[in-house]
Amino acid sequence: MKIHGTHFRTLWLDEGRSSVSVIDQTELPHRFEMVRLGSLDEVARAIVTMVVRGAPLIGVTAAFGVALALREDPSDASLARALATLEATRPTAVNLRWTMKRMAAELGHKSRSERFEAALALAQRLAEEDVAINRAIGEHGFEVFRAIARDKGKDTLQVATHCNAGWLGTVDHGTALAPIYRAHDAGLGIHVFVDETRPRFQGAALTSFELGQHGVPHTIVPDGASAHILRTARVDVVIVGCDRVARNGDTANKIGTYPLALAAMDNGVPFYVALPSRTLDFSLEHGDAIPIEERAAGEVLEVTGVDASGVKRTVRVAAPGANARNPAFDVTPARLVRGFISERGVLDARDLHRLVEPA
Amino acid sequence: MKIHGTHFRTLWLDEGRSSVSVIDQTELPHRFEMVRLGSLDEVARAIVTMVVRGAPLIGVTAAFGVALALREDPSDASLARALATLEATRPTAVNLRWTMKRMAAELGHKSRSERFEAALALAQRLAEEDVAINRAIGEHGFEVFRAIARDKGKDTLQVATHCNAGWLGTVDHGTALAPIYRAHDAGLGIHVFVDETRPRFQGAALTSFELGQHGVPHTIVPDGASAHILRTARVDVVIVGCDRVARNGDTANKIGTYPLALAAMDNGVPFYVALPSRTLDFSLEHGDAIPIEERAAGEVLEVTGVDASGVKRTVRVAAPGANARNPAFDVTPARLVRGFISERGVLDARDLHRLVEPA
Repeated sequence: MKIHGTHFRTLWLDEGRSSVSVIDQTELPHRFEMVRLGSLDEVARAIVTMVVRGAPLIGVTAAFGVALALREDPSDASLARALATLEATRPTAVNLRWTMKRMAAELGHKSRSERFEAALALAQRLAEEDVAINRAIGEHGFEVFRAIARDKGKDTLQVATHCNAGWLGTVDHGTALAPIYRAHDAGLGIHVFVDETRPRFQGAALTSFELGQHGVPHTIVPDGASAHILRTARVDVVIVGCDRVARNGDTANKIGTYPLALAAMDNGVPFYVALPSRTLDFSLEHGDAIPIEERAAGEVLEVTGVDASGVKRTVRVAAPGANARNPAFDVTPARLVRGFISERGVLDARDLHRLVEPA
Repeated sequence: MKIHGTHFRTLWLDEGRSSVSVIDQTELPHRFEMVRLGSLDEVARAIVTMVVRGAPLIGVTAAFGVALALREDPSDASLARALATLEATRPTAVNLRWTMKRMAAELGHKSRSERFEAALALAQRLAEEDVAINRAIGEHGFEVFRAIARDKGKDTLQVATHCNAGWLGTVDHGTALAPIYRAHDAGLGIHVFVDETRPRFQGAALTSFELGQHGVPHTIVPDGASAHILRTARVDVVIVGCDRVARNGDTANKIGTYPLALAAMDNGVPFYVALPSRTLDFSLEHGDAIPIEERAAGEVLEVTGVDASGVKRTVRVAAPGANARNPAFDVTPARLVRGFISERGVLDARDLHRLVEPA
């Protein structure tokens, strides 16, 4: 994806192969800055503090974190510590666990002298696969969009989305935003209603930044306003990403997705989930079994932005002494999802098993 | 209601009767400050800028605004200008229109020399009526809460609310919060989940402030999180205020109320609207006819709060160049409302006509 006209991915291996560089997403949209992560601990901290975020990107970044740990110490103990440390950073997104399992399986039997090279090669392969998966999701989603536009006889689709499931949350292309970029580039008119996504404003800060860089027309709405927008603004389709999908199709995604799905259902607007097969957790029967990360209350009680001089500042919005709940995700029941747009095509909840079968 | 132990109403006539004092709600929760409004234009500006807000309080404040205009100039032209100016301040809340109509009816035939006194007396009567109405809503709502607690065998009720329908939005007691205060004072355990209520944070800033002053346990949640809270936190009842209710029970209230009602319905949680009969607009058949105020995009793109030194600051959270929609209200369909708690008792949507019939 292009930023100020230059092609970027969200992470890359630095020359010398002793660190990876990532875009510091806590500085967006105000500053576009790269950070070098040179150790397991730096990678883990970047995930916890959401310098990198988005289920697919967390998985790939963690893979490089394992490689960096093995560069310093290729022992079994070091590998085990790296896998455990990274898996503990964020509990809900399943890509992280999937990635750690795959690294354990591929690296455990390697000799110490092979481990760093093998881990690096696997991390790079996972990054390339992420790009390819998202490109395929973009194609399948574009077909969905085209069909809706054709059926309704519209030149421009009104699309709603939540949080950031764009290229910033992946290595490139994005998941939910991939079909939007694909459709926009192909000349289908697209306008996106972007939920601001409290408490961390990933919609207002990240999705709006991405869409703006790509020239996609869009409008930010407070999360509580999107139901009204769906009722009154002739929205054609809702598309969101996901952090973990259970076997039955129940979908954990950024907090605020479930009420958006309810509003879509109440207004007859089809609600799609962009689902890389790595984000399917076939071991869980339903969504109630998905662990929901609870983050610090301060993220709700205080807001960080930039003042008129561009100085970053944090202000308190809540009453003194007030407390807050801050669940980072919610679970949208499968019954509210029209379809899952995966790299293997658009699936109904009943057909998710196809994603765990050989292609 | 008590603030720092002192009894306050949200507005009162100053000695000399040439101004009214109100609490500046744009400074809450960080500073508790009074502002004097000494003219029609000052009253109108206070309503537009939300120094005073809440449908009942807007109505009463506007009544005093008419009196202040007539104090300076009791002519027909002055009366007409006052009514038109105030009615134009905010389009959705119907209490304002109801009040202006009532003032027109009672003051139009009065002589110039009588008008100021008559307007002042009426404004004061409307203020007293508001207090009495809300006290009655508190009693009827308390009965609803008691019945729920009894049926479930619970000592403590989990209540969810949106925006601020407390004493800050009325002359005293509040509408949706009146039953909460009544129940708390009577010894029924109450814990309130308070939607923060973007974009202006009336929940996090005002409701949390009020409940804190009164000692009612509560927790702020981002608007997008309340559906998850309703699904997982055993919430017993949702109660909200309203800005205008149509004849069929469709309810305009602060943006974000409609998705909260959808979440309540999806989780079997009863959803009540506290409805002073003045907020019923029997002239409108259904909610689609209610005008929805659209406010400035800046309220969404920027956030105001206080920094660690207590200095008030405004920070931008959205991407540069981004635009936003900012509808101030949404319409909750009557089918999602379990009951309307009015000063005359709890009514079903089908029985709202009783509120426009003589008692």
